Amino acid sequence: MKQIIKERIDKLRQQMKLAGVNAWYISGTDPHQSEYLAEHWQARSFISGFTGSAGIVVITEKEIVLWTDSRYFLQAEQELAGTEIQLMKMKTEGTLCPGEWLGIVLDTGNVIGVDSSFMSISQYESFKLDIQKYKLQLKHTGDLLASIWGDRPPLPDQQVYEHELKFAGLSRIEKIAKIRTEISNNNADATLITALDDLAWTFNLRGEDVDFNPVFIGFGFISLSEIILFINLNKIPVNIQQKLKNDGISILPYEAIYEELKIFSGTLMIDPDRANQALIDSLSDLVKIVYTISVPTMLKSIKSEKELKHIRETMRKDGIAMIEFLFWLYQTVKKQRVTEYDIAQKLDYFRSLQEGYKGASFFPIVGYKQNGAIIHRSVTPATADVVNKEGMLLFDSGGQYLSGTTDITRTISLGETTQQQRMDFTLVLKGMIAISKARFPSGTRGCNLDILARKALWENGLNYGHGTSHGIGYFLNVHEGPANIRQEFNEHSIKPGMVLSNEPGCYREGQYGIRIENVIACKMQEKTQFGQFYGFETLTICPIDINLIDINLLNADETIWVNEYHQRCFNELSPFLNDEKKHFLGKITQKLG
Amino acid sequence: MKQIIKERIDKLRQQMKLAGVNAWYISGTDPHQSEYLAEHWQARSFISGFTGSAGIVVITEKEIVLWTDSRYFLQAEQELAGTEIQLMKMKTEGTLCPGEWLGIVLDTGNVIGVDSSFMSISQYESFKLDIQKYKLQLKHTGDLLASIWGDRPPLPDQQVYEHELKFAGLSRIEKIAKIRTEISNNNADATLITALDDLAWTFNLRGEDVDFNPVFIGFGFISLSEIILFINLNKIPVNIQQKLKNDGISILPYEAIYEELKIFSGTLMIDPDRANQALIDSLSDLVKIVYTISVPTMLKSIKSEKELKHIRETMRKDGIAMIEFLFWLYQTVKKQRVTEYDIAQKLDYFRSLQEGYKGASFFPIVGYKQNGAIIHRSVTPATADVVNKEGMLLFDSGGQYLSGTTDITRTISLGETTQQQRMDFTLVLKGMIAISKARFPSGTRGCNLDILARKALWENGLNYGHGTSHGIGYFLNVHEGPANIRQEFNEHSIKPGMVLSNEPGCYREGQYGIRIENVIACKMQEKTQFGQFYGFETLTICPIDINLIDINLLNADETIWVNEYHQRCFNELSPFLNDEKKHFLGKITQKLG
Repeated sequence: MKQIIKERIDKLRQQMKLAGVNAWYISGTDPHQSEYLAEHWQARSFISGFTGSAGIVVITEKEIVLWTDSRYFLQAEQELAGTEIQLMKMKTEGTLCPGEWLGIVLDTGNVIGVDSSFMSISQYESFKLDIQKYKLQLKHTGDLLASIWGDRPPLPDQQVYEHELKFAGLSRIEKIAKIRTEISNNNADATLITALDDLAWTFNLRGEDVDFNPVFIGFGFISLSEIILFINLNKIPVNIQQKLKNDGISILPYEAIYEELKIFSGTLMIDPDRANQALIDSLSDLVKIVYTISVPTMLKSIKSEKELKHIRETMRKDGIAMIEFLFWLYQTVKKQRVTEYDIAQKLDYFRSLQEGYKGASFFPIVGYKQNGAIIHRSVTPATADVVNKEGMLLFDSGGQYLSGTTDITRTISLGETTQQQRMDFTLVLKGMIAISKARFPSGTRGCNLDILARKALWENGLNYGHGTSHGIGYFLNVHEGPANIRQEFNEHSIKPGMVLSNEPGCYREGQYGIRIENVIACKMQEKTQFGQFYGFETLTICPIDINLIDINLLNADETIWVNEYHQRCFNELSPFLNDEKKHFLGKITQKLG
Repeated sequence: MKQIIKERIDKLRQQMKLAGVNAWYISGTDPHQSEYLAEHWQARSFISGFTGSAGIVVITEKEIVLWTDSRYFLQAEQELAGTEIQLMKMKTEGTLCPGEWLGIVLDTGNVIGVDSSFMSISQYESFKLDIQKYKLQLKHTGDLLASIWGDRPPLPDQQVYEHELKFAGLSRIEKIAKIRTEISNNNADATLITALDDLAWTFNLRGEDVDFNPVFIGFGFISLSEIILFINLNKIPVNIQQKLKNDGISILPYEAIYEELKIFSGTLMIDPDRANQALIDSLSDLVKIVYTISVPTMLKSIKSEKELKHIRETMRKDGIAMIEFLFWLYQTVKKQRVTEYDIAQKLDYFRSLQEGYKGASFFPIVGYKQNGAIIHRSVTPATADVVNKEGMLLFDSGGQYLSGTTDITRTISLGETTQQQRMDFTLVLKGMIAISKARFPSGTRGCNLDILARKALWENGLNYGHGTSHGIGYFLNVHEGPANIRQEFNEHSIKPGMVLSNEPGCYREGQYGIRIENVIACKMQEKTQFGQFYGFETLTICPIDINLIDINLLNADETIWVNEYHQRCFNELSPFLNDEKKHFLGKITQKLG
């Protein structure tokens, strides 16, 4: 492999010479800013051998460097070993960003090549600003890997399918009408749909082009008079082609969007974080651009009452699968060999028994004992540890159902618990409850709420190094914008109908990891003379390990919350369980105190 | 007055015609982005008659418009009545910003005049972006009021004085050495000091050029080889001139900075929020600009241990003044006529008995009963209500002492309290205590902490429409950057040594206002494997009205906090009070419960 990487790097340097650039920048994303990439677009992995999900590669005539974040430091070190590729640890004191690094290693006037279709407009602008400080130039080279990536996987040609109206709630025509209203409100003539989940939502279609996200590759263009879906025609079954046509939607080849944009005139709404730079490079100088957040991103983040009804039903299914899984786990761990990988498989298996299940919503995380402290651990058969009837186990998994997307983490004890475990667990739980019970006026942002999840931990000198909450799609991406709950600023406030995770944690390196995650929906509460107040509804229905709760650390309201939640779990799930499992559920939802 | 305003507007329109502009923009600030303006710079008030402290005026050939914020809607309506000036209510649904409004009323290609010395670089850039959308042009006209403002007050010529080393802690040479280190760290050659409080801090000088802020008008330029203070020489006593000379500081006339900048070459650090656009307009094209926050803004925000020692001592003095005031008030209100204005006067009087007192740190706010709900009420003899031995009274005041700046709000009851008053007061108090007891890791920002002050209120459908906390200067401006605690994002995290207010409130229109404000300092707490934790030290020493506390709404920790705080108030203040007042202090610091 090291030799293959060396050859690829050598070939890329030849292409750089031919293209007349001193360096080449690989953003490591796709033309849609996707989280999960089709293999066709895994350029970072092709050139470096690094298989993590985030990172930027920059290559010069003499050096090649990979930037990645703390989740992947260890993995990158292992995968880059033996190559000439240097690792740059992002967000670590003293680490230069790519623009600064290039500013130092290159000479004034040197040229950096990029394929602008792999950079968002914002990313491109900020990179350009960075390198201009060093008087470096930027050149659009197109994809230099095209001619050297011999066995490059083609773009996926999976068939798309309809997300039926009974689940989607609104027809694509109704959704497009809402998008057109927003176009008019912005005094614009048209907008582009560039993110794959936005596209899937708008057209009520789903696909299988990438792992875990039920999306397909394409672009959308909606003007007040036209609707175009840019997608390779062989991906669309004939009956759906006909339906789209009936809805007034034109279908053009995927790549045709760049040519079509050349002849557009008028005012175009574009999301600079979700559209790639090559799209606006295609526009004539006369086009007026209005930068706004993608319209479907905003619209789909507010789940309708119909969607919420489906989600509640989906959460019940997911809860049943979880109880069946827990029942299996507690039984099996006592009597036979179970690995972390088996657990990941079983989570998928029990979900697959539920109607409408379409697969996992992300790569499951299963961490036994000290592995639980590795926040983004991928379990493979090779790396899976055996799980015994002692110690703590963290599992974070979710499902894609036609009627919604789930995401749940539970941490359980498989044997005796220690005081430190119970204390850490209870402090995490206090944070999770505080978010669940939060009440806040309209306009409140995630960065304002985040401390609720951390306060009890902070008061005890603990913390966790990830966000508290991400938005969740509706039978779409498990990570969905625009709102979230984190320490970092995000201008988008939390609004009724938004579905979010609620997942504080605590990780003791070498010992264990704790995370408790429910899915919540923002809902209206009362309006007073001081404003319109909102709160959250908890959607996930699955008990929390009572053996790990130190009731002395809970206040009266928190104890009530746990007891009511467990009562609800029992009431909603038990009708669907056999007597043995119903009894088991009764035991694990016993009243505290 | 209305006739005078009309004449001024007519004359300004003549000047606009001469200058070849279709509109003129009055930012309403000074060349230093000051909060309090010297009369010389009160252009907004000159042209409009509006005397509020914030607002923008835009005049076209046919219209003249004032934008101001909600604090001043009523006042502006009254003061603009009878003039042709239209009021625009900022941050109100549907209100256009000045750039958008100009975009609509002007024709494509029209020219807007500005005096760029009255706009910060950020303000200028954002205004330019706004009007470019409408294809309008910008022209630097200089100050069009210069020739029409006949009796314009001159720039103040008050003498500056030394802030003695025993108070300042560091000599100006030591401070300049720190600034030079930052210049080097930023690979720059020099920096500008443009904000008046930054200038006063850097040079250990104070002045009397504006109300409440002990600053003087000038600019500073510090390079690795030169130190220049731009100030009119007649403002500097001869002995200070000599000292500055001994310290290697050159003195040039105030206005000379613009000429000096023309001959500067190299890399210059500038704060785009604190420097005016005319300063960078003066620079040659070869100058490289590094935009950073002003170096003295950052340095002075972290108070040294010496400064904190002085501040603690100052808080004791301020606390004694407050006890004497409270003693006077409770006695007097029973037996003679007392108005809100008398109260404001007395607050100043009792502070003036303390050593080192130099005057109020802002215009005191005194609000009896329903007046307490008017957040930014200015009390004048004409508008002052009589205060009786019943109802609630809010007073927010502060002092400038050579050894620190104070800012305190107390709300007290002068008679029977109602259940709603006690509940509102206690909920506000809970927020104040939550901030006081906060514990958080390094890197935490004000927007992350703010909810602590609001949580108890929000849970009861209440809220307040102002920030929770602002930074406070050291014998400098009572509002000091860069950090604060608000819902809004501010990138600057809270760091040990920062001195801040802690002032949640609750305002019931037509009934009463409640605000409880202490000054706090961020301090180091323990370092764990999860990070370095910080907390707050409460600096203000003055009891909180126990008659307004509903102890049933406090949890055990909060009750302990109040009791310990009151014990501390008694211990620290009683040694400086006579027996009668000591007895009074004992009574108002009685243990809860």
